Amino acid sequence: MSIRIGIMGYGNLGRGVEYAIQQNPDMELAAVFTRRNPKDLKVLTGTAKVFPAEEAEKMKDEIDVMILCGGSATDLPEQSPKYAEMFNIIDSFDTHAGISQHFDEVDSAARKSGKLGIISVGWDPGMFSLNRLYANAILPNGKDDTFWGKGVSQGHSDAIRRIEGVKDAIQYTIPVESAISAVRSGEMPTLSAREKHTRECFVVAEEGADKAKIESEIKNMPNYFADYDTTVHFITEEELKKNYSGIPHGGFVIRCGKTGRKEEHTHIIEYNLKLDSNPEFTASVIVAYARAAYRLHHEGQSGCKTVFDIPPAYLSPKTGAELRKTLL
Amino acid sequence: MSIRIGIMGYGNLGRGVEYAIQQNPDMELAAVFTRRNPKDLKVLTGTAKVFPAEEAEKMKDEIDVMILCGGSATDLPEQSPKYAEMFNIIDSFDTHAGISQHFDEVDSAARKSGKLGIISVGWDPGMFSLNRLYANAILPNGKDDTFWGKGVSQGHSDAIRRIEGVKDAIQYTIPVESAISAVRSGEMPTLSAREKHTRECFVVAEEGADKAKIESEIKNMPNYFADYDTTVHFITEEELKKNYSGIPHGGFVIRCGKTGRKEEHTHIIEYNLKLDSNPEFTASVIVAYARAAYRLHHEGQSGCKTVFDIPPAYLSPKTGAELRKTLL
Repeated sequence: MSIRIGIMGYGNLGRGVEYAIQQNPDMELAAVFTRRNPKDLKVLTGTAKVFPAEEAEKMKDEIDVMILCGGSATDLPEQSPKYAEMFNIIDSFDTHAGISQHFDEVDSAARKSGKLGIISVGWDPGMFSLNRLYANAILPNGKDDTFWGKGVSQGHSDAIRRIEGVKDAIQYTIPVESAISAVRSGEMPTLSAREKHTRECFVVAEEGADKAKIESEIKNMPNYFADYDTTVHFITEEELKKNYSGIPHGGFVIRCGKTGRKEEHTHIIEYNLKLDSNPEFTASVIVAYARAAYRLHHEGQSGCKTVFDIPPAYLSPKTGAELRKTLL
Repeated sequence: MSIRIGIMGYGNLGRGVEYAIQQNPDMELAAVFTRRNPKDLKVLTGTAKVFPAEEAEKMKDEIDVMILCGGSATDLPEQSPKYAEMFNIIDSFDTHAGISQHFDEVDSAARKSGKLGIISVGWDPGMFSLNRLYANAILPNGKDDTFWGKGVSQGHSDAIRRIEGVKDAIQYTIPVESAISAVRSGEMPTLSAREKHTRECFVVAEEGADKAKIESEIKNMPNYFADYDTTVHFITEEELKKNYSGIPHGGFVIRCGKTGRKEEHTHIIEYNLKLDSNPEFTASVIVAYARAAYRLHHEGQSGCKTVFDIPPAYLSPKTGAELRKTLL
C-alpha cells in the first residue's frame, strides 16, 4: 500500500511536492487543501481530491502524512501545531531564530495526538544543517562557513516589493568568489557579512516613481541590505519576465578542521548545491522525509523531530539489506 | 563520566583514533591492545594502559566502545564478530563486496551479547555512502558518480610492492578533470573506469631489477591497473621518502537529478573531501560514531548497524536543543 500524502497550500512548494510524489512509486497524492476556492484549483494528479483548508480534519484517516506548504512568517507557526493534532506533518519552517519555540509547540501538539512531526525540512534549514552537524562532529577543532547563491532570495525580493513606487522586483544573493576560495584553501578566515555575499536587485519601478529614492531605500534597509554591497538595476516588466523568471538557488557548507599529533593536518569537507528550482528541490527533500515520518510513526514514535533525529535509511524506499549492498 | 574507548591495533589508524579522542572532551582512551610486545609500544596518552590483544576480554567492564583498527582483508572479518561478543565495537571494514556477510556475522554476535556494533565507518564506505543515500532519496530520478583522489591508495601501493624487483612503491589515484566537469555540468555522462580515473605510480626498484618488466607487470595487472591509464615513474628511495611520504586522499560524490512537471529542472548535489591524512580523517569519523554507539547501547539497542542507521544527532556531544539552536 502506498503512503498517502496531503498537501496544505498549493503554491510553488505545493506543486513541487506533487511533482516529487510522481517520482516516488511508494507514494500517492491523496488530497490538496487550499484557502482558495477548490473549484478554481486544477491539480495535476487525476486521483487527488481538492478540499477547502478548513475541511482537512475529515480526511484524518485517509492521509498518512500532511505536508504543510505555507510560509514561515505567519502560516506555519499557526498551522504546524494545529495539524500535528490530527496528522503526521512535515513543514519547511525556515526562520532560524524561531525554530526552538516552533519545535516545542509542534512537539507538545504531536505528543498529545500521538502523531509525528518533522519541522524545518528543506536545504537550509535541512541538508545544510545536516552537513554542518556531521562536519562539526567529525572535525571538532575547526570552523565552518555557509555561503548561499547564486540564487533568488524570496524574502529579499518581497522586501523590495514593499517599497513605495516598486511594481515588481527580484533579488539575487551572490557569494563572493574570493571568500569561497579563502575558505576552501583551509585558511579559516574570519569574514563579515559584506565579505561573504553581495546582493543584486532587478527592480521594475512604477511610472513616474523616484528611482534614486527607491535605490537609496533598498541599499539602506537594515538587516536585509545595509550590511551588504548592493547593486540595483532598473529594468522593464518585460525584461523581468523574460530574463529573471526562474527560481534558482544553491550554496555551499564548507568546514575546515585540523587533526594530528600537533594538529598539523588540514581537512576540508564541502557540501555544495546547484539548484535550478529552489521550491522543487525543497519539495524533493520534504517528500523523502515524509517517507521517514510515515515509517517512524508506524513504529510507534511520536512528537516533534528534525532532520538531526532521523536515521538516513528511513528516507529511502530500499530495505536495509539493499542499501548496504548498493550504496554503502 | 567520559566515554571509555579501547583501541585494537596501533598503526596509522589507531594513532589517528588517539589524536581524535584528544579533541573530544567527553571521551578518554582507556587502553590500547596490540599484537606486538606491549613493552615496545609507546602511546601518547599517559593514562592509557597497553595490553596484548589476547587479554582484551579482561577489560570488558572498563571499556565502553572498542575501536577495531585492523585491515579489512584478514583482521576485521575475524576480529569484528569476535569482539562484538564482549564490547560495543566500531570498525572501518571497507571491502564493499563483503559488507553484507560481515554485517550478518557482527549482527549475530552482537545480538547474542546485547552489544552494539557499527561497521564500515570512515569516508568510503562512510560519509560518501551517506551522501549517496541522501542524494538518491532526494533526487530519485538521477545518476550519481563517485570520484576518488587525488590521493594515495594503500591497496594499489601494496599490490605494486608485491611485484618481484620492487623495493617500495606508492600509487596515486587521480580523478580525470574533464570527467568531473562533465558530471558537475549535469550532462549525466556514462563513464568507464578509464575515463574517470588515472593511476600514477612511484616505484623504487631493487638494484639490477628489470624496470621494463616491472612497468609492464604493473600496467597489465588485472583489476588494479589494466582498466586504467597508468603512469610509472622510477625514483630513488630518498626521493620517495622526501616527496611522497604523506597519506593524503579525498574525492567527490556528485548526484545530478531532474525535477518538475516535465522534469525540466536540473539539480546538482556534491559532497567533496580534501584530506591531508586519510587515516586521521577516517579515525575522526570513527570516533564520532563511537559516541553514537555508546549512546544507542545505553538506550538499550544492540546488534549491527551502519552509518545509514544512526540518527545524526547521536554523533554530536551537543544536546538536541543546543543542536537545533546552533546548527539547524
